[in-house]
Amino acid sequence: MQPISFDYTFAIKQFTQDIDRITHKILQNAIPNVLKAINELRALRELGTIGFTDLHTNEPGIKKVKDTVQRCQNWADTLVIIGIGGSSLGNKCIHMALNEYHGYFKGTGSCSTNRIFILDNLCAEDIASLLPQLDINKTVFNVISKSGTTMESIANFLIFYEIVKAQKKTALNKHFIFTTTSGKGDLYNLAQKSGITCLDIPENVGGRYSVLSPVGLFSSAFAGLNIDALLDGARNASDYCWLPSIETNPAAAAALIYYLYFTKNKKNTHVFWAYSSKLEALCQWFSQLWAESLGKITPSKKTKNHVGQSPLATIGPRDQHSLWQLYVQGPPDKIHTMLKINESPTDFTIPEDVPSFESFTTLKNCSINNIVTNEQQAIEFVLARNSRPFVRFDLPRIDEFHLGQLLLLLEFVTALTGLMLHVDPFDQPGVEEGKQMTYALLNHPRYTHKLAEFHRLYSSCKTYGVVP
Amino acid sequence: MQPISFDYTFAIKQFTQDIDRITHKILQNAIPNVLKAINELRALRELGTIGFTDLHTNEPGIKKVKDTVQRCQNWADTLVIIGIGGSSLGNKCIHMALNEYHGYFKGTGSCSTNRIFILDNLCAEDIASLLPQLDINKTVFNVISKSGTTMESIANFLIFYEIVKAQKKTALNKHFIFTTTSGKGDLYNLAQKSGITCLDIPENVGGRYSVLSPVGLFSSAFAGLNIDALLDGARNASDYCWLPSIETNPAAAAALIYYLYFTKNKKNTHVFWAYSSKLEALCQWFSQLWAESLGKITPSKKTKNHVGQSPLATIGPRDQHSLWQLYVQGPPDKIHTMLKINESPTDFTIPEDVPSFESFTTLKNCSINNIVTNEQQAIEFVLARNSRPFVRFDLPRIDEFHLGQLLLLLEFVTALTGLMLHVDPFDQPGVEEGKQMTYALLNHPRYTHKLAEFHRLYSSCKTYGVVP
Repeated sequence: MQPISFDYTFAIKQFTQDIDRITHKILQNAIPNVLKAINELRALRELGTIGFTDLHTNEPGIKKVKDTVQRCQNWADTLVIIGIGGSSLGNKCIHMALNEYHGYFKGTGSCSTNRIFILDNLCAEDIASLLPQLDINKTVFNVISKSGTTMESIANFLIFYEIVKAQKKTALNKHFIFTTTSGKGDLYNLAQKSGITCLDIPENVGGRYSVLSPVGLFSSAFAGLNIDALLDGARNASDYCWLPSIETNPAAAAALIYYLYFTKNKKNTHVFWAYSSKLEALCQWFSQLWAESLGKITPSKKTKNHVGQSPLATIGPRDQHSLWQLYVQGPPDKIHTMLKINESPTDFTIPEDVPSFESFTTLKNCSINNIVTNEQQAIEFVLARNSRPFVRFDLPRIDEFHLGQLLLLLEFVTALTGLMLHVDPFDQPGVEEGKQMTYALLNHPRYTHKLAEFHRLYSSCKTYGVVP
Repeated sequence: MQPISFDYTFAIKQFTQDIDRITHKILQNAIPNVLKAINELRALRELGTIGFTDLHTNEPGIKKVKDTVQRCQNWADTLVIIGIGGSSLGNKCIHMALNEYHGYFKGTGSCSTNRIFILDNLCAEDIASLLPQLDINKTVFNVISKSGTTMESIANFLIFYEIVKAQKKTALNKHFIFTTTSGKGDLYNLAQKSGITCLDIPENVGGRYSVLSPVGLFSSAFAGLNIDALLDGARNASDYCWLPSIETNPAAAAALIYYLYFTKNKKNTHVFWAYSSKLEALCQWFSQLWAESLGKITPSKKTKNHVGQSPLATIGPRDQHSLWQLYVQGPPDKIHTMLKINESPTDFTIPEDVPSFESFTTLKNCSINNIVTNEQQAIEFVLARNSRPFVRFDLPRIDEFHLGQLLLLLEFVTALTGLMLHVDPFDQPGVEEGKQMTYALLNHPRYTHKLAEFHRLYSSCKTYGVVP
């Protein structure tokens, strides 16, 4: 039960030739910014505007998840999560980190016969490849949408609703669990009418901050993960993420560094490296959290000012062979976050007796984890030497407790960075226009004016194209 | 058998308020740059320096692949690819696009009982989850490394070599196929000594341009894909990718636009969108190609000049719910490439009879593909309206022929862009330093001086960290 530590040695200017790093003095002078952000966040919490910070205290929600899982486990061995963005990425992140992946995620412990599929896109091919793998009689569908109206998830739901309906004359409802805002939206309305069970997403928890709500807890419990440990990790992080000091609060230190590198050092790109295949979906989850929370028009200046960093999810050592060349010699527009796993329960050792060629004999008696650790250290060294700033989180190991801690910690980092940038890290105003135009193109009567706009734009433009 | 078309309407300034797009005149004036690049590429081809342009003519290599596959199919139903970066991404791209994924890729046609696993990282957890799924007696391991010395792939190979050796007293060799440069490197040397079959990567084809060489062809044929159609697609692309005109050559037009947006309009980020889950690995393959080919120090100016764009692999509609907010309101540092699939053999239609709530009824009778197409058009509209430049490739459908065409086309685009940027799009000089330092940390006697450097740097730096 160790805390996650944070090392920012190589985000700070060490030598005169480090042209691209901030000085320790700049960091110290900026501390009031992050303390102010912590106070703003606390005020939002006290107003009830945000709730992600306290999901580990949501006792009725947690109990309802456990009860619902128990009821499903009497008859279902397969769970299909239907969700997109914040409704699926947290689930993907938890299962990839803590379960085995075989096209589906395989449950653990007494739930090791349980399978979890995640349908996180609208794509006919995804449905076609999922269908033959399901025994509908043993499958429960968890449809997750904060608004209860997300187009892609509703479309996927309607396809499967029809399929279940065609096969089941009775007990249709038990095959569906909705996770949505209580009291509004079409999923809630349908549940009310039909008796489908609803798990509640608290009103003040946005999709990308919802992993520790019933959104992520239901599938975790269904897979046999210890959700109490996951929430204990979050509780642990929430003990230190409110501390008003960059010496004791890694969320505050990290947020302040990211803020300074974006505003003062023009780092428009945030490379987020995890050194384990198990954390690939965590990197994707963080990418959404970072991009959608910070990519905004800030109203703070007279002219429009666009802020936010592009997240580049990177897995080590794998992507040393794909993206690293760009990172070390390309434009110096990046800040790197390294995520290190200190201890892994699994390892393999290369034998003593290997064919006698140099690239083989160099590795004899080495363990896989030892090689990986050395590769990560080598990459950090090269970043440091080339004056490319980076920070590092050290995760003691990948288990429920430490993952819960990491998830909440990264949510705090993101929220605090957004507040310093004077954006609302909890909204997504740019998403609406695309939704409305899609409805317009689907001939929704409410958006005929949007359709007219569409035709106006396309007819007034000169077309340029190449067909060989 | 249609060509892939290219639309660059919304990369060209259409209205006075399009502050962020290049004018048609700028594009026209820059045409000599791309014509010069085509000539340079042709000269490199004639010198024999590059070979990716002509892999469809590699008849002995193609025949050896087919013969080897036939031999393996007599006894093996499972293929494990051991490779990293250029050795695995092309394979992943082909199989994700053309086969079904169930944790492994499932072969097609008469090979539908064949399974292909790709081990593309060095991670003990990956080995641990792969092992129980294999029947060693029916498994062939294809170890792919251009140099024959890639550390991660050698390490994975040595683990599996030991496992096979422990179980098999005879016929050890038949379980391994090496794909490497003929005549040098440790894989080649071991093959010579032990009689393991080697497939050749032509010396003048770099890893990230090798998908249409035996690197990608072997697993494709093992899975029952039509590799002749894949190569026909490449042949088709090679007919038009040499044309000296941006009116008839989509590679030339695209490369010129990307070059101008990087050099004149400071677009440091290239967002590459594909509207199908099937193309997720294609986006990752392209990310490597783009990042590693262009992310370089260019020697063209007096001072060091870092070039290259960060690739952001994006899947639609999925990532409209994770990255889109950043793309539409974040910093205007991006150029977007949209990849559209015109026709899909698979579809589902939402029934007439849906529960009577608005977000459901809006979708009734809609097909999934129709919704997705409209979503993509809506997103393009919003990009256009917000003066965020984009181009689009239209892929007639996802099959061997069109995928082969697309792969070679994107390789041409990348090579031509690199030549215009005055970098070598075929090398990766920044990768070496990390490799050497890893060897140093593994106590390799040749790198003791690097280890001293490591300790010098770390001991001379002040450490900053936070432990809560």
